[in-house]
Amino acid sequence: MKFSKLALSTSKNRLNSDECLSHRILLQSGLLRRYSSGIYGNHNLLVRSQEKIKQIIRSVLESYDCVEVSLPALQPKYIWEESGRWNKYVDSGQMFSCKMSNGTYCFAPTAEEAIFTFVRDTLKSYKDLPVNLYQIGPKFRNELRARGGLLRSKEFSMMDAYSFHSSTESLKEEYAKMKEAYFKIFKEIGLNVIPVAAMNGDMGGNLSEEFMFISDAGEDVILVDSTGKIGLNTELLEMENIGEYLQSNYGIKNIDMLSQKHCIELGHIFQLGQRYSTSMNGTFQDRNNNSIPYFMGCYGIGISRTLAAICEQNCDKNGLVWPESITPYAVYIAYSIDKHEEAFNLYSTLVNENVEVLIDDRDLSLGAKIKDSKLLGIPYMVIIGNKAKSNIYEIETRVNGQKSHMSLEQLLNLFK
Amino acid sequence: MKFSKLALSTSKNRLNSDECLSHRILLQSGLLRRYSSGIYGNHNLLVRSQEKIKQIIRSVLESYDCVEVSLPALQPKYIWEESGRWNKYVDSGQMFSCKMSNGTYCFAPTAEEAIFTFVRDTLKSYKDLPVNLYQIGPKFRNELRARGGLLRSKEFSMMDAYSFHSSTESLKEEYAKMKEAYFKIFKEIGLNVIPVAAMNGDMGGNLSEEFMFISDAGEDVILVDSTGKIGLNTELLEMENIGEYLQSNYGIKNIDMLSQKHCIELGHIFQLGQRYSTSMNGTFQDRNNNSIPYFMGCYGIGISRTLAAICEQNCDKNGLVWPESITPYAVYIAYSIDKHEEAFNLYSTLVNENVEVLIDDRDLSLGAKIKDSKLLGIPYMVIIGNKAKSNIYEIETRVNGQKSHMSLEQLLNLFK
Repeated sequence: MKFSKLALSTSKNRLNSDECLSHRILLQSGLLRRYSSGIYGNHNLLVRSQEKIKQIIRSVLESYDCVEVSLPALQPKYIWEESGRWNKYVDSGQMFSCKMSNGTYCFAPTAEEAIFTFVRDTLKSYKDLPVNLYQIGPKFRNELRARGGLLRSKEFSMMDAYSFHSSTESLKEEYAKMKEAYFKIFKEIGLNVIPVAAMNGDMGGNLSEEFMFISDAGEDVILVDSTGKIGLNTELLEMENIGEYLQSNYGIKNIDMLSQKHCIELGHIFQLGQRYSTSMNGTFQDRNNNSIPYFMGCYGIGISRTLAAICEQNCDKNGLVWPESITPYAVYIAYSIDKHEEAFNLYSTLVNENVEVLIDDRDLSLGAKIKDSKLLGIPYMVIIGNKAKSNIYEIETRVNGQKSHMSLEQLLNLFK
Repeated sequence: MKFSKLALSTSKNRLNSDECLSHRILLQSGLLRRYSSGIYGNHNLLVRSQEKIKQIIRSVLESYDCVEVSLPALQPKYIWEESGRWNKYVDSGQMFSCKMSNGTYCFAPTAEEAIFTFVRDTLKSYKDLPVNLYQIGPKFRNELRARGGLLRSKEFSMMDAYSFHSSTESLKEEYAKMKEAYFKIFKEIGLNVIPVAAMNGDMGGNLSEEFMFISDAGEDVILVDSTGKIGLNTELLEMENIGEYLQSNYGIKNIDMLSQKHCIELGHIFQLGQRYSTSMNGTFQDRNNNSIPYFMGCYGIGISRTLAAICEQNCDKNGLVWPESITPYAVYIAYSIDKHEEAFNLYSTLVNENVEVLIDDRDLSLGAKIKDSKLLGIPYMVIIGNKAKSNIYEIETRVNGQKSHMSLEQLLNLFK
């Protein structure tokens, strides 16, 4: 891609605000555009990175036999009346609802009602279970305390999965598998996450765990053990038998063994049990022809938030530093104006080899281009200064600033 | 993917309705799930096919230097007041709008307002132009006459592109390029489309052309010449100087040279000129430092509708017939229960070779599986009957019903 086609204007100055560093870099780079509180547009580089996150999620979930579907974001009121959540969600002011001449609708912040309506006439026998269906798409929530751009916005991208089972044992098995799948997903994306035991909140049901990314930009306070592998949401401290719970579930004898940290919540997995299947009349016939409500699990990953966490984990004073697995472009070509032809020859060669290249073809000094390459965080930069020798390329690695010189052949090998 | 994981239940009976054949097949196969008028959920096979359509669009548009971005679907009222379209859209009852405690919002049926707000502070000089930005995502319109499932629904998937120029000439050049890109996209998808001259309607501006797919399922009446390459929307007949227009633009001397057909509209390209840039104050500095409103083009492709047209073009009495370029799965394995192990060995081999396989592992007769394979329209079916010889596979091609026998090696070659 040619930079001149991006309609992207970077700024030299970082905003002064109490927002987290990554958010300020995203605004400075022009990658995030604010419309109003909690409403943003995403520029090309963020869209490309998000698509890669989605592909990683799809590929891991498919290997766990999860099936992608697409539920409507626009939903009729009646399905929310069945679950008994319409008034609660609308009265809280958090759900966008519209009274139109031909009916009342909402734009869904979550999709338990929609998935039930989707599967209820299909999953009729124990033979049809277990299944796990997921979707990837926009969700809407009227955040009254919107902040941090991608971190807590009114429109956000999510993966939400729903599993249906004929027994608690089958639900528990799937829950454990999904936990494993989540670790794979976040590992592949390049984020360190901690599973944190939490309350189920609005969702109802029995057990849930949040996948938290430790960051000063986070809002929630969690308690983490010294290995960084056990976490608890502080909400849990309100539980009556918390001491016993810690001892029996984690072998923790004293709450002082845990220290406080701040969390961005990236994912959440729930064992919902029969709460929704009872109210929404979702039942299957067991081996003895009894009608039993499904046992249900649900699993979410905030994709916009994951992107925010990646930016927060991977930035320095010069800008972003994309991990290679989800970088929008692999290489940035910064060149002096009088090296235009050589730069575009290299660009064409790389594009033909399916390397994702961003070439900075703007009428700017080489120094300004190098600054923007660092600000935008592309993993490799090829620098073609006016004294550059032909067929020897200077490469700078964003993550550590290391420079090296390569032939075209070596360069092509680097991207294979 | 294993069929048992799809949560898909097909029916033997087609619905009796006056809806088009493809829509009835989509409901019969369970691929489309109705929530209420104009609101549907899409099953796995439709989602996979849509993703392939999106990838074709992305790949062609990127080769034309178009840049993918993502604008919010949820939009604040103020941007629609700037363009002067808020009252018109809300009063017509077609735009979903919500009055919340913290502001008034809408869910956008189109994104001219959003794209202006996105680029206005960035495209300041003639040097920044031309650019062409597009997004792929959901749009919302409160269709009062929703019909045909994917054809006219309240939530639908669209590609919408917006180009900005410093002169009419540059706009015309881009318009011609996009027309070329559209032909490439629809050719790759495997749909025959006709560009049809049309009025600009709500969009304003000067010139527009619709990309129509000829089908009895279509609603619009268009006039087409005998070569099938020239089309006119009948709206145009209301133009005062229609005779002159036909003669000078198409060399058509007499309207009787054209015959009436029915159109599904799949795409639309517009030369909007300066209509929005004037009202929304989107200007650039020209070479003489004069402030000039951008010249603007906009270009849309209805992705849900394209999927509907594909189904309508590619179905027969047995069900769907996916074109290979956008089929959700390449091959369907139908086997007798006692060939379970052999079938799963083949499945694993194909999955390891990255072939997209759907294996019908349900507890059903081979005959029922073969029927569903045809109903779902997967291009190739491997049939493993209880008398099948090991390592010789029976293949049936969906499009023409031809059968052949292949070794594993030949089978793998077929999918390479």
